Amino acid sequence: MRRYFPILDWGRSYSRDTLISDLLAALIVTIMLIPQSLAYALLAGLPPEIGLYASIAPLVIYAVFGTSRALAVGPVAVVSLMTAASVGQLAQQGTAEYLGAAIAMALLSGLMLLAMGVLRLGFIANFLSHPVISGFITASGLLIAAGQVPHLLGIRADGHNLVDTLIAIGRAMGSVNPVTMALALPTLAFLFWSRSRLKPFLKARGIRDLPATILSRSAPVLAVAATTAVTWGLGLTGHGVAIVGDVPRGLPMPTLPPLDPVLWSQIAIPALLISIVGYVETVSVASTLAAKRRQRIDPDQELIALGASNIGSAISGGFPVTGGFARSVVNFDAGAETPAAGAYTAVGMALATLFLTPLLFFLPKATLAATIIVAVLSLVDFDALRRTWAYDRADFAAMAATILVTLGVGVEAGIMAGVLLSLVLHLYRTSRPHVAIVGQVPGTEHFRNIDRHDVVTAPGVLSIRVDESLYFPNARFLEDTIYACVATNPALRHVVLMFPAVNAVDASALETLESVTARLRDAGVTLHLSEVKGPVMDRLKRSHFLDDLTGQVFLTHCDAMRALAPDVTASTLAADRRETARKGAKPRGLDAAAGL
Amino acid sequence: MRRYFPILDWGRSYSRDTLISDLLAALIVTIMLIPQSLAYALLAGLPPEIGLYASIAPLVIYAVFGTSRALAVGPVAVVSLMTAASVGQLAQQGTAEYLGAAIAMALLSGLMLLAMGVLRLGFIANFLSHPVISGFITASGLLIAAGQVPHLLGIRADGHNLVDTLIAIGRAMGSVNPVTMALALPTLAFLFWSRSRLKPFLKARGIRDLPATILSRSAPVLAVAATTAVTWGLGLTGHGVAIVGDVPRGLPMPTLPPLDPVLWSQIAIPALLISIVGYVETVSVASTLAAKRRQRIDPDQELIALGASNIGSAISGGFPVTGGFARSVVNFDAGAETPAAGAYTAVGMALATLFLTPLLFFLPKATLAATIIVAVLSLVDFDALRRTWAYDRADFAAMAATILVTLGVGVEAGIMAGVLLSLVLHLYRTSRPHVAIVGQVPGTEHFRNIDRHDVVTAPGVLSIRVDESLYFPNARFLEDTIYACVATNPALRHVVLMFPAVNAVDASALETLESVTARLRDAGVTLHLSEVKGPVMDRLKRSHFLDDLTGQVFLTHCDAMRALAPDVTASTLAADRRETARKGAKPRGLDAAAGL
Repeated sequence: MRRYFPILDWGRSYSRDTLISDLLAALIVTIMLIPQSLAYALLAGLPPEIGLYASIAPLVIYAVFGTSRALAVGPVAVVSLMTAASVGQLAQQGTAEYLGAAIAMALLSGLMLLAMGVLRLGFIANFLSHPVISGFITASGLLIAAGQVPHLLGIRADGHNLVDTLIAIGRAMGSVNPVTMALALPTLAFLFWSRSRLKPFLKARGIRDLPATILSRSAPVLAVAATTAVTWGLGLTGHGVAIVGDVPRGLPMPTLPPLDPVLWSQIAIPALLISIVGYVETVSVASTLAAKRRQRIDPDQELIALGASNIGSAISGGFPVTGGFARSVVNFDAGAETPAAGAYTAVGMALATLFLTPLLFFLPKATLAATIIVAVLSLVDFDALRRTWAYDRADFAAMAATILVTLGVGVEAGIMAGVLLSLVLHLYRTSRPHVAIVGQVPGTEHFRNIDRHDVVTAPGVLSIRVDESLYFPNARFLEDTIYACVATNPALRHVVLMFPAVNAVDASALETLESVTARLRDAGVTLHLSEVKGPVMDRLKRSHFLDDLTGQVFLTHCDAMRALAPDVTASTLAADRRETARKGAKPRGLDAAAGL
Repeated sequence: MRRYFPILDWGRSYSRDTLISDLLAALIVTIMLIPQSLAYALLAGLPPEIGLYASIAPLVIYAVFGTSRALAVGPVAVVSLMTAASVGQLAQQGTAEYLGAAIAMALLSGLMLLAMGVLRLGFIANFLSHPVISGFITASGLLIAAGQVPHLLGIRADGHNLVDTLIAIGRAMGSVNPVTMALALPTLAFLFWSRSRLKPFLKARGIRDLPATILSRSAPVLAVAATTAVTWGLGLTGHGVAIVGDVPRGLPMPTLPPLDPVLWSQIAIPALLISIVGYVETVSVASTLAAKRRQRIDPDQELIALGASNIGSAISGGFPVTGGFARSVVNFDAGAETPAAGAYTAVGMALATLFLTPLLFFLPKATLAATIIVAVLSLVDFDALRRTWAYDRADFAAMAATILVTLGVGVEAGIMAGVLLSLVLHLYRTSRPHVAIVGQVPGTEHFRNIDRHDVVTAPGVLSIRVDESLYFPNARFLEDTIYACVATNPALRHVVLMFPAVNAVDASALETLESVTARLRDAGVTLHLSEVKGPVMDRLKRSHFLDDLTGQVFLTHCDAMRALAPDVTASTLAADRRETARKGAKPRGLDAAAGL
């Protein structure tokens, strides 16, 4: 029970002090979340109240199921963009079908997350490498920012990718609305400034830390209030300033999301991508914050919590939610001690839904667009490209492909291209295991790579150390390597495979070893193994391999060499290490077996 | 030059003896190939002469580019089935569109293979694990055999998968043609018998080895001749026996395959699958045969040779070809010494095309069907299922999925399901690297797994040995493992990661190490590394990691322990190994970090 309901754990020791900490954190997060929830609904192409709805039920549900003490769940930028991109292909913005598809997306994504959690499939998130996620978030940030520019300019322009969007903006530049711009650009500047400078500014003026924090986090709310007041007071709607308009008042009612199988099959892949991207973001922020206080999260239970939250979002008429990075850090810094802080935030959002919505009528869309731009540009990290280039070219390729395809084609294509390329590159790398020809270090029982050490090799015996587990992606390479050595070394009588680092041998590699044994036998060469680990040996015993093996399995490599080349081994063992050391002769043909 | 034209290598030392060996092998292979080429054209749903055409130009081209001395290229069963399955979705059998699509398939597949060879992408074949290939071939064999049964019974019935086909056969059982059956079943029985028994039978009657071999390989030709004669002599076409009919006489003319982009995009994925399946079959048989004579093949050059052969097949009006398993073994056993044997086989096939085609008019299709069934049933290997089950459950799952999906849905879905499942299972496995908490073996400088050895650990220091390279699929697991240990061990001050088996650290793992460092620092724990390999260290130096590392990088793990826990290490070092050995205390929370 406590595994699936972590609330039973922390709830029992809930104290007055914890309550005060959680309430304060909830206050700050609520102030931050009100404009964000409206803005991300706008970004997802949905009516503003849907953003509010997605910020109530999911938070309460996460408080029951979540294992992170500080995660703040709700609408986030990247997932909102992904929702807009996939739902936009199925229906027109503003229609009931569009809203229904977004709600169905939350439900399906929630069910997928829940299923992955119950089946303990959290490892699927490992498919997304860091460079791919980083590239995807950077590209999404640029796409989102570009998509909000028309709101700042008071024009209509959109596109599925960056190029389309920029061209559409360029074409519409003739119809820029100067009043909207006059309102939007100072708002944008203020939000950028307040993001990093407002708190130091306030503290320099003698305001204490806590009020300064609350005030600086209130900057977006302040911008909302000020621009709404100006728009209402000066009657700017008459000058073409787009406003949010009527936002229905009251709490969300339980709704049944559309259960149309055709729709579900159309949104299945986007829902999976949204689930995985949202989950990866959640787990990385939650585990970062947990580690800071020496706490732990349970990644599989997080799948369940996030799944339940999304199902709750769908049933209360909301769209896909996940754990937001910036918001969770704010929650943590503000002192949230338990997931109850999220539930209190939900109460704050419910109050906003009940009492604030009439005040939002004159809120300019340009203000929300400015809020979004400031939030997402902090996600853009071009320096990561430089760092990745310096460190690893394959990772750089996956990252660059993700960015280019996301910007040039779209979010779904971008993330899929990144995942595929990184998998292919990963398989390419693992298809070339590290293997070394080894020789004996004079005066010792140690065997080392002949390319790096002064070692002695015995004629007629080839010792190959395999430094990785053997499985289908690398089985063929090992085979090629062995044949390369054998084909060019007619004096060869014995091959010894040294397995100190082989933790597993799968069925493909087993078959390869069997065929290597048979082919070497046909060529008059005996195959031996040495230093095979216990679990590997146990498994080999369940096959015919050991019966068919032409040679023996030696406990240590030195035993093998004593048996196969007793003279050379004994004299090398007796040799003075410094005096008689000579570089072992490299068998011909090794250069052909690249990678040795 | 010689890399791309291996003929320049072996051609220079071509002697009279080699010529005789090659000519003899070519004779035997030609006898075998005539009925096979007709039968596989039938299997692919193509006119019989297309099978002959595909057995001329590709063989000559392979002789120029191929690196295997014994590979016999031509139409093979599995690739013919795959061609039929994909082309059958685009056009009706017997139409010019169907033939055009099959030819385009050969061209596109050839271009893909050529491109992979030039780009040295042979490792792509590693995506296909042995259990998936084995399952696919078994299932294809069953599908092919079931598909030929209607020809034996003289009925019309087909389907895309085994269930469909069997149902269709069941429904058509009322219209079985008894004359066809009376002809087909004895032919089938004779072919089965001659496959294994004819050669011993002949040798027991005093016939020498070589003539006995040639005669036993001639059994299908004999069956073709006898059934053709009977059909003609008794006028069986009047009794409903289906015959091959008019086969155009003469050599294939160069043709331009259809270059329709819509068609090419429709056949792109099947062409890729055919390329990879054909390549895997080619490489495995070629390297098996090469190793028997201590020769080598060049897998990337084989891609080029196979690609050029398929392009040649397309231009001469043929369909996709590859290196056949059974045929290559026959070629090898018959003494083929160079790829020239293939060129001589091509001459034999050209002569057949010029002079034999009028004789094929009365050849019953049932005879060809019997030839196919005998050939493919030898590919069916159900015992592999049992062996794989005993050895490895994950491999068994991939194999069973391949068989079930191939039989139940079709060849393309089957192979894709197998590849996907084996990749997912592989990633799952590699996402859990082998790591061990280690302690000092008393009286030595050695450190071993605390779960398997009596070792001493120092309080406040946690030593973790990582037994695999670190990259994105397993980065998160390592992170979770470290946090699990730290969260439950408040006395901990130092974590030392021991990297003796880490051959690579990719950008994702680097980022994980960076965040582990930062989070441990926040928790008051210092992170150190020990025994980092040279190439890994070089790469780490290209990042900020070493600057941000809170601890040090130690050359040996013993150095690390001497620095971090000098008292414990010194006393353990001085201890008598047998006397004071005690089992190291297992840190709490390790059970939570499953897999340690």
